[in-house]
Amino acid sequence: MITSPSSLRRSERSRRATLDAALELCTEKGYNRVTVEAIAARAGVSKKTIYRWWPSKVGVMLEAFTQVLVGVTPFVETGDIAADLRAHINGLVRLLSTPPYGPAYSGILSEMHHDEELARAVREQLVTPRFEAAVERLRRAQEQGQVPAGADLPLAVELLYGPVYYRHVLRKPSQDEATVAALVAHVLRSLTAGAPPADAPEGSPGRVPGQGRVS
Amino acid sequence: MITSPSSLRRSERSRRATLDAALELCTEKGYNRVTVEAIAARAGVSKKTIYRWWPSKVGVMLEAFTQVLVGVTPFVETGDIAADLRAHINGLVRLLSTPPYGPAYSGILSEMHHDEELARAVREQLVTPRFEAAVERLRRAQEQGQVPAGADLPLAVELLYGPVYYRHVLRKPSQDEATVAALVAHVLRSLTAGAPPADAPEGSPGRVPGQGRVS
Repeated sequence: MITSPSSLRRSERSRRATLDAALELCTEKGYNRVTVEAIAARAGVSKKTIYRWWPSKVGVMLEAFTQVLVGVTPFVETGDIAADLRAHINGLVRLLSTPPYGPAYSGILSEMHHDEELARAVREQLVTPRFEAAVERLRRAQEQGQVPAGADLPLAVELLYGPVYYRHVLRKPSQDEATVAALVAHVLRSLTAGAPPADAPEGSPGRVPGQGRVS
Repeated sequence: MITSPSSLRRSERSRRATLDAALELCTEKGYNRVTVEAIAARAGVSKKTIYRWWPSKVGVMLEAFTQVLVGVTPFVETGDIAADLRAHINGLVRLLSTPPYGPAYSGILSEMHHDEELARAVREQLVTPRFEAAVERLRRAQEQGQVPAGADLPLAVELLYGPVYYRHVLRKPSQDEATVAALVAHVLRSLTAGAPPADAPEGSPGRVPGQGRVS
């Protein structure tokens, strides 16, 4: 399909308006009462246009949430891995405790439990890229000698994100900054003794199990 | 209400039949297609009887799931805290990857996202008692000198359960035994250096933050 620059711009404006409308309506009505009809009306686009770009309401919400998430949880590099992880996790915790983002993500997680296609989309578009970026950030810290060689970086990422999800899905009070600081300190400490001896062969008792598993 | 021993026995049989029927139907049809009508028919009790005991389908499922969970994830005490935690977490992981238990719990978690009353019931009946029992198990290990004095035990429990929930709600592959062993080893190691110096005053830098927070 050949499109002119102006129709591309119009198209981008409509996409943006749709994502904004979805989050606005989520704030006003709560996730469950938002419909594709209402999003279309608020954004000034047709339902057909929305369904051309996204398979469902939850698809619109997923893209809207992902864009905000990526914006507020960057992987900064100040040279201090503990400070950078604290900033990252604090950003995530704040996002999840702020309407409409927390409720929007809850709505997505709720649907994922009985929608395998959505679950795959969430993992591919949101979870896996963020997980890999977190592993990559730890790997750079490792290269700078801030994390021991041989540390189980995917497990470290699960230890960081796991408690945040645990509280979010069980709707417990979210972490405050002191708790996030304790979490990050514990996770980094758990890696300290995790390096295998330099001469440990693959699979020897000195080697940390769980390396190289599918995440 | 005065009830005779035989009516108490009948009542207990009906409760048990209802819980069994709920889990059986969950296996056969999947959580979302189970109705209170179908549970009543399978159990041979009236819908009115079910609603006398539980507020909704999800209430029946919660009790059925909790009973099984408590049964398969005991807090044993062999004198080896690492082995006991591995057995506990492996039991939880296996339960969550076994139908109908995993899907039943997913159904409950999914409803919790938009039902505050249910969320409170799940925390009060299931999450908080298990969380406290886990802290208590770690406290006994602490008394036996297997976990350092001053370690942040509630944080340790979140580090253990968090990654299990993370994988379950995102529908990633569940942990294998090697990964659970690595998880437990990392969490115990994270506590090792976590004790404050014996003379550290409350709130000093040597003190682990996050102690005593609401869980």
